[in-house]
Amino acid sequence: MRPAMTMRNIKLTISYKGTAYGGWQQQKNARSIEEELKKAIFKTTGETVIVYGAGRTDAGVHALAQTANFRTDCRIPEERIAYALNARLPHDIRVTESVEVPDDFHSRYNAVGKIYAYHLYLGPIPSPFYDEYCWHMPRPIDLTLMEAQCAYLLGTHDFRSFMASGSSVKTTVRRIESIDFEREGPWVTITFKGNGFLYNMVRIMVGTLVEIGMGKKRDMVSIVAARDRSCAGMTAPAKGLFLKQVLYK
Amino acid sequence: MRPAMTMRNIKLTISYKGTAYGGWQQQKNARSIEEELKKAIFKTTGETVIVYGAGRTDAGVHALAQTANFRTDCRIPEERIAYALNARLPHDIRVTESVEVPDDFHSRYNAVGKIYAYHLYLGPIPSPFYDEYCWHMPRPIDLTLMEAQCAYLLGTHDFRSFMASGSSVKTTVRRIESIDFEREGPWVTITFKGNGFLYNMVRIMVGTLVEIGMGKKRDMVSIVAARDRSCAGMTAPAKGLFLKQVLYK
Repeated sequence: MRPAMTMRNIKLTISYKGTAYGGWQQQKNARSIEEELKKAIFKTTGETVIVYGAGRTDAGVHALAQTANFRTDCRIPEERIAYALNARLPHDIRVTESVEVPDDFHSRYNAVGKIYAYHLYLGPIPSPFYDEYCWHMPRPIDLTLMEAQCAYLLGTHDFRSFMASGSSVKTTVRRIESIDFEREGPWVTITFKGNGFLYNMVRIMVGTLVEIGMGKKRDMVSIVAARDRSCAGMTAPAKGLFLKQVLYK
Repeated sequence: MRPAMTMRNIKLTISYKGTAYGGWQQQKNARSIEEELKKAIFKTTGETVIVYGAGRTDAGVHALAQTANFRTDCRIPEERIAYALNARLPHDIRVTESVEVPDDFHSRYNAVGKIYAYHLYLGPIPSPFYDEYCWHMPRPIDLTLMEAQCAYLLGTHDFRSFMASGSSVKTTVRRIESIDFEREGPWVTITFKGNGFLYNMVRIMVGTLVEIGMGKKRDMVSIVAARDRSCAGMTAPAKGLFLKQVLYK
């Protein structure tokens, strides 16, 4: 028998198109992924829950596999919870997996890393079908140089140059384990794997790489060393960014 | 010198995401592709023109390469017209090519055929990124049977069974030259090439094939022979349909 006070801890994996949302976090003047999940959980279980997300994605940012967890007394089999929630969620949010996890699992505190992918589209005319999923870059751009400069972002650095100004965190040191730079026809996908990312860090790294590729910025080494947001490039648009995976041990 | 009364005839190739529109045709209570093009042409040339489309796509139907033509006195080089219009069009409509054509070219009357593609998605959970571009079909479905039954739609037939009721046309005889049935992972793409299609014909053919695959309908031969809309299956959702190409001699 289950002790009376122990609730089940459910981990969700969630895929969403961020276009119509003000971001993950619940907020006053925009729809949020967090709020839509809480509403769907309430309709399914009758319970008002706290949904712990692995991280906050910004307005317009997408997720292939965001994770979150919440506690419930409901008796729905773990794998059926995804289907029950999907029946009540808008079509641009899908729960792709639901599993019961140990009580001490926390989607954010237990995460040991994240993978983000950023899509650039270099064709002369953007596709209307992918406009919400990429940054269109019709100018000539030196991809070989961009790819080479990625190397200087690898490893453990103080990434303060790549953090949106006004953010407050204990430390701005992060470790980037890998950066994959893939070219396929007019598409460029840059995939970052790291132990954590500062606010807007991926978008500022991409914006800086693009400015290097356009000849507007030169040396990634000195941009990292400066630890100054004003030395880095622009913040790449949210719509090209996908949270691809949250890593756990 | 160009005779004073002769206007240039410009052919456009247009790609659009149909989700936000009431269809190609200008209408009172919804946005239309036709109207957006006319507005963009007016902003570019100052001229109020008639845009002749190769065919009308319904609300929610997409186009990879719709064609249209219009007459203008403007002196913009032919290939630059696409860029000029794109600067004034919403992002879900893109002109992919603009060329000057002989005065007697008419995008609809000169068309000798069309290619349509329909996308089904068979995975257990639909992707939020492709929801607007496919019909999600989570049930088990007999794809081999569906593919085999396509053969009975090939050739010249009276396709009255596959025309939305209430339509009026001179003849309901059409010729389907090819049907490609492609499977790739959870995706099925059915591509129809024909000399013309009746109103809703592709969507009703797809709906009927799906009902055959689900065991709800049996024999395509008798459905064709009946020349009766009530014998065919449901009309597949608009969102899975793409006008892929308009064929000219």
